[in-house]
Amino acid sequence: MATATSTWTCLLYPSPAGRRGRMRVRCSSSVSVSTRREPEPVATVVKAFAPATVANLGPGFDFLGCAVDGLGDIVSVKVDPQVHPGEICIQDITGHAPTKLSKNPLWNCAGIAAIEVMKMLAVRSVGLSLYLHKGLPLGSGLGSSAASAAAAAVAVNEMFGNKLGVEELVLASLKSEEKVSGYHADNVAPSIMGGFVLIRSYEPLELIQLKFPVEKELYFVLVTPEFEAPTKKMRAALPGEIGMPHHVWNCSQAGALVAAVLQGDVAGLGKALSSDKIVEPRRAPLIPGMEAVKRAALRAGAFGCTISGAGPTAVAVVDDQQTGHDIASHMIDSFLHDGNLKASAKVLQLDRLGARRIHN
Amino acid sequence: MATATSTWTCLLYPSPAGRRGRMRVRCSSSVSVSTRREPEPVATVVKAFAPATVANLGPGFDFLGCAVDGLGDIVSVKVDPQVHPGEICIQDITGHAPTKLSKNPLWNCAGIAAIEVMKMLAVRSVGLSLYLHKGLPLGSGLGSSAASAAAAAVAVNEMFGNKLGVEELVLASLKSEEKVSGYHADNVAPSIMGGFVLIRSYEPLELIQLKFPVEKELYFVLVTPEFEAPTKKMRAALPGEIGMPHHVWNCSQAGALVAAVLQGDVAGLGKALSSDKIVEPRRAPLIPGMEAVKRAALRAGAFGCTISGAGPTAVAVVDDQQTGHDIASHMIDSFLHDGNLKASAKVLQLDRLGARRIHN
Repeated sequence: MATATSTWTCLLYPSPAGRRGRMRVRCSSSVSVSTRREPEPVATVVKAFAPATVANLGPGFDFLGCAVDGLGDIVSVKVDPQVHPGEICIQDITGHAPTKLSKNPLWNCAGIAAIEVMKMLAVRSVGLSLYLHKGLPLGSGLGSSAASAAAAAVAVNEMFGNKLGVEELVLASLKSEEKVSGYHADNVAPSIMGGFVLIRSYEPLELIQLKFPVEKELYFVLVTPEFEAPTKKMRAALPGEIGMPHHVWNCSQAGALVAAVLQGDVAGLGKALSSDKIVEPRRAPLIPGMEAVKRAALRAGAFGCTISGAGPTAVAVVDDQQTGHDIASHMIDSFLHDGNLKASAKVLQLDRLGARRIHN
Repeated sequence: MATATSTWTCLLYPSPAGRRGRMRVRCSSSVSVSTRREPEPVATVVKAFAPATVANLGPGFDFLGCAVDGLGDIVSVKVDPQVHPGEICIQDITGHAPTKLSKNPLWNCAGIAAIEVMKMLAVRSVGLSLYLHKGLPLGSGLGSSAASAAAAAVAVNEMFGNKLGVEELVLASLKSEEKVSGYHADNVAPSIMGGFVLIRSYEPLELIQLKFPVEKELYFVLVTPEFEAPTKKMRAALPGEIGMPHHVWNCSQAGALVAAVLQGDVAGLGKALSSDKIVEPRRAPLIPGMEAVKRAALRAGAFGCTISGAGPTAVAVVDDQQTGHDIASHMIDSFLHDGNLKASAKVLQLDRLGARRIHN
């Protein structure tokens, strides 16, 4: 199985020269197979956690995302003589909806990212078994696929001495995002880096970390209804063309959002988050009750509310935990009453660390 | 003349009730005629300076502007018993192109703003003579009309004890901008407030001051060719509709621009300034040599370059003065060689104070 898998790997991926050639353009810190010395494993088992992420963020559509604490995926990698050297074998998937996920590394977010990192590191003599624990439900709008990819990329990198930089880990994870939801880094970048991350460009990859002041309180109220909103369908709802007034409005709100993050202005952050006139108005009607849920969140004291990622999760922001829980219950009631959907909620803080090795 | 002028004033402006009614919506700090006690003049003569401004700022089109130091307009107001109480008479206009400007306060940027401030203050018993010195050429893309309005608004407000807040002064100046170049605050707000200002909304008016770190050096290279680029013509060149990829790109650059300002990252600021894919590509070809001038600026070491306001001035940014002067000479040469236009340059710093009373 592992050998067969790895054979597909060789077939499906371009040659190192071509692949790395493009990578060097996109990421100055990447290193080609030809020049990199094969690294040794530093452990027999490495476990990594990658946090959930909230992307799109209203006017931050497609270029701004942030990581939330205490929710995410875990990937363990183990040196395994049974696995063909230089390859990955996914041994087990646990947690949310494991049966829906392929164990073929070429069709699994964690597998694709892990393979990419092994290629970047030019690992040819060691095979790895991979174990994925899905802490995140699929298709929730919380960066489920990105968290799997980020955890796998970080786990493999740690296994071989942490030789790759953040941009390379993001590029490796982007290979997996490309397959499942398009070439967008607004989930993988914050999942790997933590905090708020602005994707300035892809060619070359340029990421701007936006530091939210450590002394400020920021809580995300994440309410997920029992409803499947596939990314592709939500993407199809986007307008092809945008009028200049709406473009200028959303640009100014994007600027206000970035300013609010850097200034630690949670009220301003919420207001900007709520102000999208282009994407949210098209997508919200596709999620039963979403418009009413947003109104309920604002009535209950949220500074702002929008769709998390491509939905169906609704995200509201506030600056204290208790108010966050009150808002959550109003949002759950509204999903049931206005959308006829059961929903569950979490009130989480910003994850400032991003994907990391864990030892328990 | 003054009396006739003031009669038109009454005809052209809505009743205080209607006017103030809308103002209270737009500006929480405004006060209606009915509740405000008429203020006394605190001096016989007051002089105010308002700085030039660079608006549009690439992806900051229509919502972001900044003030530049050492260049601007000056307005003096004098208590004048010869002027009908509650009214303004423009006595003299000096400096750049005085003959092109009307002395009718209803058709002069300084006059309109001064009248609006007197209405906000409910001045009914004192008439003022106004003297305008144009330090800024007309139609240069450096906020000439905004500087006249801002200086007049501040001068009249200071004359009566500085009772109006920043938002009211911006709203008063907007009345004048509305007449000459549309209802846009991206010149008047920074001219009044100084530094970088983001216009978040108009209904109500919400302004976000973006503090550029005081310890950082930022120089604007402003190169103005002898060419008239009227605002309305440049506005007509804008695209009606924008595709989603360009919208997302410009939004992300707008976010990067705001981040660069707040983080004091001049290189990032320049890069974002240079990255507009929507407005600059349509407008630059209308200014002979502009595209070549931008290339020349970047070759000479500028971090970025774009059109200032609606042009024809080109603005480049850099972090030291000498390099600024070198870049300026390359830009002047390029305007002559590639656009067959004579040009003059200034290398100026950020104005952090905004419009203020002066005593010399």
